[in-house]
Amino acid sequence: MIKTEDKLMMMPGPVEVPHRVLMAMAKPMINHRGKEFSAIYDECQTISADLFKTKAENISIITGSGTAGMEAAVGCLNNKSDKILAIENGKFGQRFKKLAGKYGTVVPLEFEWGKSVDLAAVEEKLAAGDIKTITMVHNESSTAIRNPAPEIGALAKKYGAYFILDVVSSLGGDDIRVDDWGVDIAVTGSQKCLAAPPGISIVAAGERALAEMEKVTTRPYYLDLVAYHKSASKDLKETPYTPAVSLFYALLEALRIVTEEGLENRIERHYLMTQAVRDAVTAIGIEMFPHLNEVSAYSNTVSAMKAPAGINGEDIKKAMNKRGVIISGGQDELKGKIFRIGSMGATTPTNIMTTLAELEQVLCDMGVVEAPGAVMDIAGETMAKLYE
Amino acid sequence: MIKTEDKLMMMPGPVEVPHRVLMAMAKPMINHRGKEFSAIYDECQTISADLFKTKAENISIITGSGTAGMEAAVGCLNNKSDKILAIENGKFGQRFKKLAGKYGTVVPLEFEWGKSVDLAAVEEKLAAGDIKTITMVHNESSTAIRNPAPEIGALAKKYGAYFILDVVSSLGGDDIRVDDWGVDIAVTGSQKCLAAPPGISIVAAGERALAEMEKVTTRPYYLDLVAYHKSASKDLKETPYTPAVSLFYALLEALRIVTEEGLENRIERHYLMTQAVRDAVTAIGIEMFPHLNEVSAYSNTVSAMKAPAGINGEDIKKAMNKRGVIISGGQDELKGKIFRIGSMGATTPTNIMTTLAELEQVLCDMGVVEAPGAVMDIAGETMAKLYE
Repeated sequence: MIKTEDKLMMMPGPVEVPHRVLMAMAKPMINHRGKEFSAIYDECQTISADLFKTKAENISIITGSGTAGMEAAVGCLNNKSDKILAIENGKFGQRFKKLAGKYGTVVPLEFEWGKSVDLAAVEEKLAAGDIKTITMVHNESSTAIRNPAPEIGALAKKYGAYFILDVVSSLGGDDIRVDDWGVDIAVTGSQKCLAAPPGISIVAAGERALAEMEKVTTRPYYLDLVAYHKSASKDLKETPYTPAVSLFYALLEALRIVTEEGLENRIERHYLMTQAVRDAVTAIGIEMFPHLNEVSAYSNTVSAMKAPAGINGEDIKKAMNKRGVIISGGQDELKGKIFRIGSMGATTPTNIMTTLAELEQVLCDMGVVEAPGAVMDIAGETMAKLYE
Repeated sequence: MIKTEDKLMMMPGPVEVPHRVLMAMAKPMINHRGKEFSAIYDECQTISADLFKTKAENISIITGSGTAGMEAAVGCLNNKSDKILAIENGKFGQRFKKLAGKYGTVVPLEFEWGKSVDLAAVEEKLAAGDIKTITMVHNESSTAIRNPAPEIGALAKKYGAYFILDVVSSLGGDDIRVDDWGVDIAVTGSQKCLAAPPGISIVAAGERALAEMEKVTTRPYYLDLVAYHKSASKDLKETPYTPAVSLFYALLEALRIVTEEGLENRIERHYLMTQAVRDAVTAIGIEMFPHLNEVSAYSNTVSAMKAPAGINGEDIKKAMNKRGVIISGGQDELKGKIFRIGSMGATTPTNIMTTLAELEQVLCDMGVVEAPGAVMDIAGETMAKLYE
């Protein structure tokens, strides 16, 4: 068996990190209470704000995973008696619901994993009254669905609720409009469409949310967004607790790359790469999960496919892994039933072609596809626009 | 004015990070749900356990600052009605007290910053009954005091209390004996005596503490030590939430360096470097803070000096900074009154000599010292043992 030293990371995060970004981490340590770190924090805030489409002063940058940012959002905004409408149609919606239950009183709204969010059902819950906060995942990467954020934002506004949106796996790879959509707090991670290493969460929280947080007495300590805002509005922009300086070097480099590419270009690249996967696998008889007729909108950054009849999705994942291409299976109840390919961050059309070619080989070996060759033309055509 | 590009980091953390450790971060990303990451986690646990002097299975490694680890400890072990005896004689003791107040009911025991912990006063509080948990900082880096951990451990045992010890700025640079001292949870950070970049906290929690945590319903989510233990005891050792993979590369390299040097040698190096600072500054008429007659034990990893009469400690810090040597001032109420020099992690005797020579120059410029030259001989003599 061939052993490949470097693997191609094609999961929905963590993703390949560009060389420039990796090298940025090799820089010597600096004092995090000084002008140099302050300038880094400031530039990270400014570029992040452009991606969230909000004001730079709303941005907090936390050392921790996306989950840490989600906890900061839900924990700083809610007291235990506050009702939180937790929308769930996948693994990360479920995690948000669990988190909400730690800090508030959950009103669950569960859809089968892979089903779309039913806006009428959301409005029904809101109309029943007394919901303080809505939590939703924008890009539910466990099921490759893009949930209807602007519509939920409008409903939140109509019923006077706060709206917390998880954009962990979409910011930098899909269109996000925090201010326009009426999102009170949005949370992302560094290791998805931003193509930085994992370990940083970026949170955008507007004035309305911040004013409310001041009244919440049960805010977490390390993840206290009020403290982050206070530290970032001093003469020296800094963090309340020691930040992972090396990861900030990396994040800044990654954000500069986003700026160089241009956000619109980057979103289109993400779209075309994801669409190329969908077009190619469909052409060779693999069914998308969820089915085209059953989904409100597919993710812009990850694709999920049903494992063919008689095949375990985990075996497809393992066979790809042997070939040096790391893709994902399904999580929890979807394990074995689906497999997932990410197209996030610095992923290139070439990476997509490689992945599809290897997938076709794997499916041939399993007797699912008769002869290889079909995927390349189709994916190539979909992505051709990127070379125009 | 000369501008120095690279500064010499002589604060009590973050510290200089060795080239080998910086370069480790430049390695490509890997899946954090795979064998390769699992092996890294495993080795980090094993080496850390040797430093804490406890079992490898007790170790959790969290992406976050030392404060995150402290919150994990105090938050997972205590319900709101539980009484926490929070010992404070400096900035980090104060922070621990604040944290304790978030999760439990604080019984404060405050000593003036710079004063030693009075064991009789601790026992008096314990004898009054009903204390579930004691929190203390082992190495109070804000005042350069080593607090009496074995003695407090014995008192905790006598009164049946849990003992949480902050060893953020001492693990790897001073003798820590978690199991022998009866410490239930100990917490450290990556950016102090381990000489790794900031952003990781390592927590050692024994069986007794873990059993109690299972009963606590208000544990934080991202910082839930029960979840960390569960994930680390799976077939694949991993973390419950996405870890900062690059920082784990760095931590492992830093821990290997500790092993190569040998813990006993490393502790002796820390001691002799810190003692060299004390000997040298005392010889040129600078008074230690706290005064030699007033301290139970000095820190093994940082020295604090009183600013000479008529001089603001911040001005000494700034003058050193101009010369490219970053030292620390005092924090909060000690600001301006003291200045601090770290001797942590990868710091070498040569770094200490450089720092003392520049300090002497600065004090000459300020008219505090008449002529330079005294410090080198004295510090050199103290550290000579390191070259035997």
